[in-house]
Amino acid sequence: MSPEEVLKKIENLHATDLLPQSPENWEDSRNFLQQVVEILYDYIKEENNRESKILDFHQPEEMKKLLDLSIPEKPMNLGELLKSCSEVLRYSVKTGHPRFFNQISCGLDLVSMAGEWLTATANTNMFTYEISPVFILMEKEVVSKMVELIGWAPDQGDAIFTPGGAIANLYAVNAARHFHYPRVKPLGMSTVPTLCTFTSEDSHYSIKSAAAVCGIGTDHCFNIPTDNVGRMIPEALEEKIVQCKREGLHPFFVSATAGTTVYGAFDPLPKIADICERHKIWFHVDAAWGGGLLLSPEYRHKLSGLERANSVTWNPHKLLGALLQCSACFIRHDGLLFQTNQMSADYLFQQDKPYDVSYDTGDKAMQCGRHNDIFKFWLMWRSKGMEGYRQQINRLMHLTAYFTDRIKRTEGYEVLIEKPEYLNICFWYYPPSIRHLEEKEKNARLEKIAPKIKAKMMERGTTMVGYQPDKQKPNFFRMIISNQAITYADLDFLIDEIIEIGKDL
Amino acid sequence: MSPEEVLKKIENLHATDLLPQSPENWEDSRNFLQQVVEILYDYIKEENNRESKILDFHQPEEMKKLLDLSIPEKPMNLGELLKSCSEVLRYSVKTGHPRFFNQISCGLDLVSMAGEWLTATANTNMFTYEISPVFILMEKEVVSKMVELIGWAPDQGDAIFTPGGAIANLYAVNAARHFHYPRVKPLGMSTVPTLCTFTSEDSHYSIKSAAAVCGIGTDHCFNIPTDNVGRMIPEALEEKIVQCKREGLHPFFVSATAGTTVYGAFDPLPKIADICERHKIWFHVDAAWGGGLLLSPEYRHKLSGLERANSVTWNPHKLLGALLQCSACFIRHDGLLFQTNQMSADYLFQQDKPYDVSYDTGDKAMQCGRHNDIFKFWLMWRSKGMEGYRQQINRLMHLTAYFTDRIKRTEGYEVLIEKPEYLNICFWYYPPSIRHLEEKEKNARLEKIAPKIKAKMMERGTTMVGYQPDKQKPNFFRMIISNQAITYADLDFLIDEIIEIGKDL
Repeated sequence: MSPEEVLKKIENLHATDLLPQSPENWEDSRNFLQQVVEILYDYIKEENNRESKILDFHQPEEMKKLLDLSIPEKPMNLGELLKSCSEVLRYSVKTGHPRFFNQISCGLDLVSMAGEWLTATANTNMFTYEISPVFILMEKEVVSKMVELIGWAPDQGDAIFTPGGAIANLYAVNAARHFHYPRVKPLGMSTVPTLCTFTSEDSHYSIKSAAAVCGIGTDHCFNIPTDNVGRMIPEALEEKIVQCKREGLHPFFVSATAGTTVYGAFDPLPKIADICERHKIWFHVDAAWGGGLLLSPEYRHKLSGLERANSVTWNPHKLLGALLQCSACFIRHDGLLFQTNQMSADYLFQQDKPYDVSYDTGDKAMQCGRHNDIFKFWLMWRSKGMEGYRQQINRLMHLTAYFTDRIKRTEGYEVLIEKPEYLNICFWYYPPSIRHLEEKEKNARLEKIAPKIKAKMMERGTTMVGYQPDKQKPNFFRMIISNQAITYADLDFLIDEIIEIGKDL
Repeated sequence: MSPEEVLKKIENLHATDLLPQSPENWEDSRNFLQQVVEILYDYIKEENNRESKILDFHQPEEMKKLLDLSIPEKPMNLGELLKSCSEVLRYSVKTGHPRFFNQISCGLDLVSMAGEWLTATANTNMFTYEISPVFILMEKEVVSKMVELIGWAPDQGDAIFTPGGAIANLYAVNAARHFHYPRVKPLGMSTVPTLCTFTSEDSHYSIKSAAAVCGIGTDHCFNIPTDNVGRMIPEALEEKIVQCKREGLHPFFVSATAGTTVYGAFDPLPKIADICERHKIWFHVDAAWGGGLLLSPEYRHKLSGLERANSVTWNPHKLLGALLQCSACFIRHDGLLFQTNQMSADYLFQQDKPYDVSYDTGDKAMQCGRHNDIFKFWLMWRSKGMEGYRQQINRLMHLTAYFTDRIKRTEGYEVLIEKPEYLNICFWYYPPSIRHLEEKEKNARLEKIAPKIKAKMMERGTTMVGYQPDKQKPNFFRMIISNQAITYADLDFLIDEIIEIGKDL
């Protein structure tokens, strides 16, 4: 049959004509899968074409009319399913496009993607060695490499891959509480004094969210002020701890951030570690975004002090470019994850199995079923080696320096932080129409500039970059340079595109 | 070039030779991906071959020697990566094999798998309409269909797809607490009396785990006794609630189970709903496993009363066969998910965007980044339609009746529950050597039979089925018939295989 005839044939088939319902029909099964793969190939090719649009933006109500998303009464045939696949991709945002600077997690590493395809096909669950022997050992191997990079002693520390950094932070708060107040697990919070936690005002909101979930209360998660580049002020932390103690609260958890979401700041870890030691408080570092720098000998000093942490959150789906989701929570205290989360569900995690059940991870997780997030990361890491990551990260740091320098020298642009510590560059753009206004009026107008430019970008579909306000500062852009696809020319493009859009504002 | 030459060429390349690092080199990128896909095709074909082994079991220490899992200093070439892919699959457990009866989540639906491949390629994050317009609308559409099936009024209720049922249950406990005691979110548990929750002794351990995480305490999560088929005894529930109140505790949350993990029992929802109403307690139903039955008009009556629930957990990755992970938590109270989880992180979820931001889901999630679990389910559901699922589910129920009947009539087998309610069949097997022992001795020997048979099965690699003890009952097998690939002959095979292995015990 010709390719057209093959397509014609499978288009009229249904899922029931494929494996496993039609166990003999491998040929059509393969042809269907191959058609899906061809659609994905086209998408990848287009995503990597700088001339292609990042998105074809439509308002929600309009988008609903463009797409039929309904669940039908009768099965749809394979041709209709293939059409669905194409349509969905047509209206999706190309997060791997080299000019998508909108999120910390972006880019599409083809090796990691291939890894995720394999993960889907293997479709297993990370809770026991019994059903995930290879992936469980792989997780152990990768964890021990990451522990080494964190700087803990070999074989010290334990970790679990979690669905995102927010849940990793929740694991850390919960483990810290169990370490200091083990009675809470059986008896609840009524048996302990009023607990409190600390994090910088620039930290990720998940630290506060964990306080809500754990029954500590968001008002007992104190925001410590930051300095002019976004780093927690250690003296302010210690002052607040002392004040809380004086008021009868029990401080037990400090979260420092290595790589804040907006400014990319690194809190001064050694000083915070000292304070935690002095006050016998759990020292957590949220390195979800910044952790990847450990792979660069040139920049890992920014994380020095991390080795003193009691726990660390680190998301390989951020700087390291693994596909979403890939996050881990590391705990320096052996056995604590088990003690905290174990519910002794013998009906699931039998102790009389024919292998060493200490390899099973179910009892140390808050989840029961757990997605395999390790393979895509492991395969990608192998494809780069330590050396490849080092080069990739150092290159991104150079691109950041280049971009910062360029916008500083370009009329209309103003950086919020003179020398960004990391891959976030925060800046304002003043269109010609507001440049010569007096300060107050200019700032009032500035507040609306970034949303307007962003809306226009989305309409044009050429590039995307995020914005937000911060405290008294009007809306500003936050550029993220974490996609390995980015070139110097892409950065020039963004600068020119904003100028172009700003002309008419 | 011949296929061999193509392979030869790409084997010596590195990831840096592919997109996006080498933006022009689509041809090699495609060839590499295609090689991975060919490996996956071989795996799928083999997995669906009943003669193939489900696993090639090795002890952890031995497995470590068979596989090189290390992270190298230098990049590995594409040939080595392909070899890694093959090796990993070679030692993985084929959870989609038609004779893998070990877990509730198993099988490999090719359409759902193709969906997950697309999800990987689209690699986006479910927190805003801005970067996931199509998938956000799709989640809304699927949620409204599921809400309809649950039996809530149209447009009533809200839901979020979560990483597994345990986290979905955690969402429910947290939302219920916020509903009854909104002050806990800002002020913590010290502002409320001692709270307590209730669930049956046969329920999933994640209800207890949620009590631990939330600071309620596992001792304040009371296990209500079950009847002889594993259903919660409503009178015992009410008695316990009254007793708790008398003792000064504040009951606020009851979790009924629709489809228990071991026996597949359905708690009597209407009676439990009555009790919850009488005592003004939140009524949650953990239908992670049983929820799928709503798609069968013939069996959905088992869930009647579900429409009275305040919240429901339902995992499409169980009965409905979506790839892991695919779980959702439904909350009947509009806006409650937002109120509970919102942390007002304006720096991420701006309110001045150029579209209706009520479509953004970030503020109603406990997570920040959220994996796209909807597409693989949506595509699969379309491939089956309502009709296809109905047939698939009814067929599985027939297979269960067949299997139960057969083992009842086969010497050496004994069922624990005469007429299983669902797709779990629990049974003992007495090998000839112990059949004629006196009761006490027989039971002592029986305890070790299931683990021995299981170990032997794993060695032989022919089939897999789980076992566990329960209260005073010695270890028994728990058969799960949820993989659409299963045939009557596969069930016969299992019965014979156990007899075969049991001969020599």
